[in-house]
Amino acid sequence: MHTFEIWAPEARTVEVKIAGKSFPLKKREDGWWMAEVAEAGPGTDYAFVLNGEEPALPDPRSPWQPKGVHGPSRLFDLAAWNDGKASDGKWTDDGWRPPSLDKAILYELHLGTFTPEGTLEAAESRLAYLADLGITHIELMPVATFAGNRGWGYDGVDLYAPHSAYGGPAALRHFVNACHEAGLGVLLDVVYNHFGPMGNFLPKFAPYLTGNHVTPWGDAVNLEEAESDGVRRFFIDNALMWLRDYHFDGLRLDAVHALVDRSATHFLEQLAAEVHHLGSSLGKDFVVIAESDLNDPRLVWAAEAGGYGLDAQWSDDFHHALFTVLTGEKEGYYEDFGSLADLAKALEKTFVYDDVYSRFRKRHHGRTAQGLPGHRFLGYIQNHDQVGNRAKGERLGHIVSLGRAKIAAAIVLTSPFIPLLFQGEEFGASTPFQYFTGYEDAEMGRLVSEGRKREFAAFGWKPEEIPDPQDRSTFERSKLRWDELAESPHRELLTWYKKLIKLRQRLADLSSGAPGSTRVRYDEQARWLIVERSRARVLCNLGSESVRLETGGRPELLLASDESVAIDEEGIALGPDAAAIILLAG
Amino acid sequence: MHTFEIWAPEARTVEVKIAGKSFPLKKREDGWWMAEVAEAGPGTDYAFVLNGEEPALPDPRSPWQPKGVHGPSRLFDLAAWNDGKASDGKWTDDGWRPPSLDKAILYELHLGTFTPEGTLEAAESRLAYLADLGITHIELMPVATFAGNRGWGYDGVDLYAPHSAYGGPAALRHFVNACHEAGLGVLLDVVYNHFGPMGNFLPKFAPYLTGNHVTPWGDAVNLEEAESDGVRRFFIDNALMWLRDYHFDGLRLDAVHALVDRSATHFLEQLAAEVHHLGSSLGKDFVVIAESDLNDPRLVWAAEAGGYGLDAQWSDDFHHALFTVLTGEKEGYYEDFGSLADLAKALEKTFVYDDVYSRFRKRHHGRTAQGLPGHRFLGYIQNHDQVGNRAKGERLGHIVSLGRAKIAAAIVLTSPFIPLLFQGEEFGASTPFQYFTGYEDAEMGRLVSEGRKREFAAFGWKPEEIPDPQDRSTFERSKLRWDELAESPHRELLTWYKKLIKLRQRLADLSSGAPGSTRVRYDEQARWLIVERSRARVLCNLGSESVRLETGGRPELLLASDESVAIDEEGIALGPDAAAIILLAG
Repeated sequence: MHTFEIWAPEARTVEVKIAGKSFPLKKREDGWWMAEVAEAGPGTDYAFVLNGEEPALPDPRSPWQPKGVHGPSRLFDLAAWNDGKASDGKWTDDGWRPPSLDKAILYELHLGTFTPEGTLEAAESRLAYLADLGITHIELMPVATFAGNRGWGYDGVDLYAPHSAYGGPAALRHFVNACHEAGLGVLLDVVYNHFGPMGNFLPKFAPYLTGNHVTPWGDAVNLEEAESDGVRRFFIDNALMWLRDYHFDGLRLDAVHALVDRSATHFLEQLAAEVHHLGSSLGKDFVVIAESDLNDPRLVWAAEAGGYGLDAQWSDDFHHALFTVLTGEKEGYYEDFGSLADLAKALEKTFVYDDVYSRFRKRHHGRTAQGLPGHRFLGYIQNHDQVGNRAKGERLGHIVSLGRAKIAAAIVLTSPFIPLLFQGEEFGASTPFQYFTGYEDAEMGRLVSEGRKREFAAFGWKPEEIPDPQDRSTFERSKLRWDELAESPHRELLTWYKKLIKLRQRLADLSSGAPGSTRVRYDEQARWLIVERSRARVLCNLGSESVRLETGGRPELLLASDESVAIDEEGIALGPDAAAIILLAG
Repeated sequence: MHTFEIWAPEARTVEVKIAGKSFPLKKREDGWWMAEVAEAGPGTDYAFVLNGEEPALPDPRSPWQPKGVHGPSRLFDLAAWNDGKASDGKWTDDGWRPPSLDKAILYELHLGTFTPEGTLEAAESRLAYLADLGITHIELMPVATFAGNRGWGYDGVDLYAPHSAYGGPAALRHFVNACHEAGLGVLLDVVYNHFGPMGNFLPKFAPYLTGNHVTPWGDAVNLEEAESDGVRRFFIDNALMWLRDYHFDGLRLDAVHALVDRSATHFLEQLAAEVHHLGSSLGKDFVVIAESDLNDPRLVWAAEAGGYGLDAQWSDDFHHALFTVLTGEKEGYYEDFGSLADLAKALEKTFVYDDVYSRFRKRHHGRTAQGLPGHRFLGYIQNHDQVGNRAKGERLGHIVSLGRAKIAAAIVLTSPFIPLLFQGEEFGASTPFQYFTGYEDAEMGRLVSEGRKREFAAFGWKPEEIPDPQDRSTFERSKLRWDELAESPHRELLTWYKKLIKLRQRLADLSSGAPGSTRVRYDEQARWLIVERSRARVLCNLGSESVRLETGGRPELLLASDESVAIDEEGIALGPDAAAIILLAG
């Protein structure tokens, strides 16, 4: 027996179709329809018929789409692991609590390219490696079912159904449990700002979208108009499901700047409150982290202080400031950055654009983050977007010297922010992370391939230079090559990352996010920079000449990125592209 | 000599045309163009030519459009009254300070219909009447130049130019000064959420609008995209001009719910901060009041508490709750109201919809106003919208008995809110306030006339029943008839309003806006209601039978709406549609 429930406030009739038989649903006053079907249970395939119109449609809240976005939905018993009666396992993570965000080091992981197999099961075999690396949380790129077998995951349409190519709901449950057993927290990337262009049947069920606001993906999600209660519930119930039923430790919200909500209680405030409330009731501290392009501290201000009460947000300003200093790039949004002064401001004040005019945006941008700890922000030098949105998906190590990659790591991993690494960054993977899709619809595939070429034509790229997203080799090329761990430059970088992580975790000076805990000195011409973190100093030479920097105190050398680093009682010498971390005598 | 300045960031060339001669402007880096023209000065007519394209366009910041929205702009010396050298007068309001909002009683005034002449000069002759009535501030409906000679004013396109049909800039300056001499404050209604459909040349100068958000009037104002700095400046400089150069005491912002702004500092917060900053520098307390349909307390929360820091906002919930109780109407948004319980909640908690499901909106709406004083909200039973947006522009007195009109006045004028009256309300004007326009463009006129008929067809009205907005008689019919003051029912109501105002101003119990200062008892069936205001009680009988209400204490009768009211030591009797105000012995 199973009770089917579906929200379709404007439908005239709703039936659920199972093995060729139709069962009518009854409407409740709140726009939900219900039917108990005796012959349905876990494993049953089903689809909904609205107003008698074929073909039948998958469930917007489908727990499983084994045959993809166009196929039927399949019932899955999410509660089966709770009572220990399931044949395929049970939860063994009672009492698991991940480290809090002020102690966290995150690792962004894309299931399709993390292993050759591209599955949840295969990823489990690498968990010990990640724990040994010292990271505390995996941040899993979206797992919601999207059209085609391969993709980044941001074009999901069945938000409740873990993607079948990764292994579906059973494999995801197993994976989260295995992470916890390995001592790793897991955050999930969820996309609530749009649906993918293929297989999105939700607008047939209810007004999930509105034409009154335009986003980069078309119509906006309806968060403030008629029937928006149900739309908000759709997303928030999804968030609660991942945390309650799949045991995720928190969520990363994709691109919240694309949400438009003038309601008196913003969607993000409601979402954060409900997630935290669920956590309280379960004795857990679930976290909600937003990707935001707004430079708006309100996202992480406490609700009592007029904020939305999110736990943290991504901070691209730090990335852009660091990346442009390392690479000298000036295209696109990088035109707003490039000086050591910008990098210093990012480290000291988080937002470089804190109500400052942006040439790229052609307007003032942002607001001061004053008073907020660094641990409300994520700091990174690589992530799926910053790598993958380049024409050829080059990682930092493909653009700069090993020395500069080490400097980048040192600055990120001693920053006041929550460090985030992108899979393979820690060993300087030779493989790129390119933009790939796997649309089976030929027309959609053509549109994506041509759109990608057109996008980069504006930056002077020739069409043939751009990897074709639809070509399977673009996906294959983006997979990590784990055999590289044995090769010398990769091994050297991995050792550097491990040492930095250990040092951050040992020395509170380097992990503090307290306001004012970071001071930066630099010489824009000579290209050196010293990050002062309480008694610790991170010294970086980005110039082409060796420098000698006076440090005061009696410095103890904690880490040196290469053999050029030499220390004496009054200072420290660094060759080009070298970094060192020292501790001054208390 | 005059220095012409114009913001046109994307123009290739800009010239100013004066008496057939063209003078080129020079571009600055910030997108502004400038030219000093020796032969220009106050009174000079001019227009701008962009990219060499004729016809020349009026100045978006034109101080005067003597020939309407399509004519040339004319220079006007706004500073002339400051140094006392002008021939037509000087400011005589040094030291003028209006009462603060907690002591205010506002009067909404439409210049075109307030007097037979429809001018600022004619309105001046009625200032003594308004002062005698006891109101403290006039709230002037928009004066910015719009297409045609008559209209409500919400379709302005030259936001800096006082409408010529009202008398233009000189008459407006004179009017504000005269108000202050009469002891009256003056607030100005400004429209920053859209421009009128005729004569809006602003998009030719800069991206004032964006197609990324849709409003009831089409494209939204660009507050968050490229070049939005200049758009925000356009509106905020306008606000500052009215306060600094025309000596207005504050502003009423039209329909702020139609603004879309995801910037880290919301446009309204910036506007309020700049207005208050100007006030501080001049030693004045300028106020900013928003019309808002959001039921969002954030608008009036202090900026330090995460709010926008506005001084007050309109509150339609109180109107709708009171209006439906008085009239029994149920159409449109009135379906969400109708019970004495709603009215009680409005009086006690301001927002009836404070995160409650709204059938009309088909979603939850609003947020609690807890902790905010009533003086952050305007309370009214009539305003230009609530009267004028009815099919025939009927006032309350055209729909209900004199007794009920008196009850309405008693509830409004003893409420914790800032009372607002609509012109003529105080004497129960027989004249309606209908929707009228005066477009000279035939096609536009036809669209407006037909649109109005279509809008009301949805409510079952026949086309011939709807007054034609373009017909001059619709405008004429809406003018107040001051000879009615001598007629008995009008005189009786006027006396009632004057007594209520005097009582509110004498008795702090009745004007307090402190949170918790209002308690309401009622009987939904017997249709009586008692508003408890500290030691005062406002007793209203909305039933068809006489009632006897126990009051406790030793009541002193302060005001009775008719002869049915009788008081003794233990209670008070009221006939149908009667109200009384009593004071309990301390």
